[in-house]
Amino acid sequence: MVDVFDIVIFGGGGDLSQRKLLPALYRAYYLNELPQHTRIITTCRNAEKANIYRHTVVESLQSYLNKDEFSEPRWQGFKQLIFPIALDITQRDYQWEQLHDLLGKHLSRRRIYYLAVPPALFGICCKHLHESLSITDKSRLVVEKPLGYNAVSAEAINSEIASYFPESCIYRIDHYLGKETVQNLLALRFSNFIFEQLWDAKSIDHVQISISETVGLEGRAGFYDEVGALRDMLQNHLLQLLCLIAMEPPNKMNSKTVQAEKIKVLEALRVIKPEEVNLHCVRGQYCAGVCGNEKVPAYLQELGQNANDKPSDTETFVALRVYIDNWRWSQVPFYLRTGKRLKSQCAEIVIQFKAVSHQLFDEKAGAMQANKLVIRLQPEETMELILMAKNMDRRDIQLQPASLNLNFTEVHHQCQSDAYKRLILDAVADKTSLFIHRREVQAAWLWIDPIIAGWQKSAVPITLYPAGSWGPIDADELLARDHRYWFNGGEV
Amino acid sequence: MVDVFDIVIFGGGGDLSQRKLLPALYRAYYLNELPQHTRIITTCRNAEKANIYRHTVVESLQSYLNKDEFSEPRWQGFKQLIFPIALDITQRDYQWEQLHDLLGKHLSRRRIYYLAVPPALFGICCKHLHESLSITDKSRLVVEKPLGYNAVSAEAINSEIASYFPESCIYRIDHYLGKETVQNLLALRFSNFIFEQLWDAKSIDHVQISISETVGLEGRAGFYDEVGALRDMLQNHLLQLLCLIAMEPPNKMNSKTVQAEKIKVLEALRVIKPEEVNLHCVRGQYCAGVCGNEKVPAYLQELGQNANDKPSDTETFVALRVYIDNWRWSQVPFYLRTGKRLKSQCAEIVIQFKAVSHQLFDEKAGAMQANKLVIRLQPEETMELILMAKNMDRRDIQLQPASLNLNFTEVHHQCQSDAYKRLILDAVADKTSLFIHRREVQAAWLWIDPIIAGWQKSAVPITLYPAGSWGPIDADELLARDHRYWFNGGEV
Repeated sequence: MVDVFDIVIFGGGGDLSQRKLLPALYRAYYLNELPQHTRIITTCRNAEKANIYRHTVVESLQSYLNKDEFSEPRWQGFKQLIFPIALDITQRDYQWEQLHDLLGKHLSRRRIYYLAVPPALFGICCKHLHESLSITDKSRLVVEKPLGYNAVSAEAINSEIASYFPESCIYRIDHYLGKETVQNLLALRFSNFIFEQLWDAKSIDHVQISISETVGLEGRAGFYDEVGALRDMLQNHLLQLLCLIAMEPPNKMNSKTVQAEKIKVLEALRVIKPEEVNLHCVRGQYCAGVCGNEKVPAYLQELGQNANDKPSDTETFVALRVYIDNWRWSQVPFYLRTGKRLKSQCAEIVIQFKAVSHQLFDEKAGAMQANKLVIRLQPEETMELILMAKNMDRRDIQLQPASLNLNFTEVHHQCQSDAYKRLILDAVADKTSLFIHRREVQAAWLWIDPIIAGWQKSAVPITLYPAGSWGPIDADELLARDHRYWFNGGEV
Repeated sequence: MVDVFDIVIFGGGGDLSQRKLLPALYRAYYLNELPQHTRIITTCRNAEKANIYRHTVVESLQSYLNKDEFSEPRWQGFKQLIFPIALDITQRDYQWEQLHDLLGKHLSRRRIYYLAVPPALFGICCKHLHESLSITDKSRLVVEKPLGYNAVSAEAINSEIASYFPESCIYRIDHYLGKETVQNLLALRFSNFIFEQLWDAKSIDHVQISISETVGLEGRAGFYDEVGALRDMLQNHLLQLLCLIAMEPPNKMNSKTVQAEKIKVLEALRVIKPEEVNLHCVRGQYCAGVCGNEKVPAYLQELGQNANDKPSDTETFVALRVYIDNWRWSQVPFYLRTGKRLKSQCAEIVIQFKAVSHQLFDEKAGAMQANKLVIRLQPEETMELILMAKNMDRRDIQLQPASLNLNFTEVHHQCQSDAYKRLILDAVADKTSLFIHRREVQAAWLWIDPIIAGWQKSAVPITLYPAGSWGPIDADELLARDHRYWFNGGEV
């Protein structure tokens, strides 16, 4: 159990708070992981919203929690922890003093300031916290990636908040890192001899990291069209997963060592120069198609552009071939891919080992396939090791793939895996190994920027793909040129 | 489908024929794996037995087949294939000519002579076949291990049959090698990069091979007391499994190459000199105890010895530490163990990999355990890879073992795995990689003989263990001295 704490959620009425943060805190309460007298202070821009805030929360909990998680008696207890206040972040008025006084009642507590607001407000919010003398030694700032739009803007945001909080008190969240399976990656890699021995260019042919979504814009049209898949997903989630897969084993297990190793990976990513962008990167945008059993419109239509507007060329799909120029990964391609309106919702990492060097069983015995380790984060958290075994139904030795499986969700029934709950409680407990250092953000953007520059200069138009497919065929060709193919979410 | 053939089973009324061979042939028939007009000629010593033979078979099939396998209509078909004849193997009389004439009707067929009789009769049986001119080019001799009692007697038997059949036509069966999982061993080792890379002293800490039985003497008292566990089980089954685990990858997959590699392993076994026998070997004999929920008597009591007889010191349990003195396995112990009246019936191979060289997760995070590959042949054919993973129910990284599982029996429902069916059909098809070369038998005995000599000279009395236990504690101490412990059939 963590020590009693106060958490202040700026933007308490927003989407992130309602969908993720309050449900996560409720879960922690429900599972008795919140100390008594913990306070959840939430800010709304206007007083009316603050007044009906608890009512808003109960509706959100009922929508976003699993049915069996919501309980009226537990809600009655949980709602006592919530302190909604009205506060306009941009205005330096008496409301900040009210917040200061409220917090001041428990001066010695750990304080979490959670900025569930757009990055543009991070600086001013910190400034007002500072001016109202609300930043104590025990205060931590939690912000969520993606931070910024490119290296320059990210650095600007990071510099601004750094004026008020030391780096060690700033916890940058990537909620993918809160997933149990992602954390398990480190345990798997570093506590298993068989993986530790085989985790390098001598044994691994290539790595695939895919996050596919079936959803479209989900009402984020304005935001998303400015950003695109590369910035929204790849720059943060996929690169973070890549770091955990590729990092050197640290000597000790703590945030400093882990972050240092992740930064080394990001700095070792081979730069994709603007003029090479079409060689290593594929970008696509969905057109109308069928997703699930439902006809869905094209991106441009969802965006609501007028027919005479220049059509947006924001990418809703991106696939990259990435090399890590270091000793461990020399010449091993990492294929990253993410997109919206794809065939199924899935997040998975595929470690493709090499094939055995000599084919002992003859042609008839079936094409030799290499071993794969598939770590799936979504829709279920599972691990699968694909081996070759004898086809038991035949008398002669005919090989066929066989799967060794582990379903973490099945094994751990009681664990309602909630990445945000995990990360919030980690922040309270100062367990920072899952948070992201400023230098990681910087290194990621420095590598992303030339790709964007390349696209801006490129004469190659964006490729369209039908909603409900696996993305543009260019993405298949990217791998086919290397005599490889995408492993598509369980479609072996 | 194999070509139509004749199989002559000498000792058709015996235990092996009734329990194993006829059910195996019935299964092959049932699954349409026997060609039409195949003949199963079975010999009984006297005419009465031959007359009622088919009746005997139907009773055996009903006892030893699974319930859903026996079908009256199929039996009506199968019984047409059975040709029971009266023949006294030891007498060179007209009955051999009758057999010759019966076989002569289909002179060009593949002929399998299956000697389901004691090894003492092998020579005379071959002689009489030879004299009655029944050995054709297409004749194969099938015999079952254990052959002989020591190197000298095994060599004598092998020499005798070699006067009548060339080595290439002699198929020595070890029915353990007919199990699907055992055959799968070669596929697993040689078609999976991750295993092939880690299959040596650099990666493997030790190997365990255990075959535990719950049964006692099962009416084989006289035979067994002459033989003991070392000769009855270890010399053949366990050493064969050891060979398949330890052999070098052959360049091609055929009987010649596989047998050659197995012989190299047997010849590389470090000799246990008679004076070292108590250092590397443990022998035990069961006393009264509880097996399952049943009180069972001591070995001596089952044997029916009189109180004034010198008590038998035949071992019903043996455990050995074996080293293979070659490049691949230098200093890697192989622990072999087999016994009767043990706690559960189980046959399994445990490949214990080394631990990771550096412990990254702290003490609290749980003792680091090494990876294990467990290949189980009995009671079910399964494979399990034991990894360390994060305990998902906890927020911090606490390691716990997690199993990746593959149950071959579940995956291959239709496959009624029957080692004898497999081996008989292999013999018919001249697929000989699962049979045992004369030199293997010889090499195994040459290694076994000094152990028996050591026991005969040793002043250390045999250790008793209660029926229903895992054998004498000496066997645990054998491993404990090396800071290891037995992995007991699923009791993780």
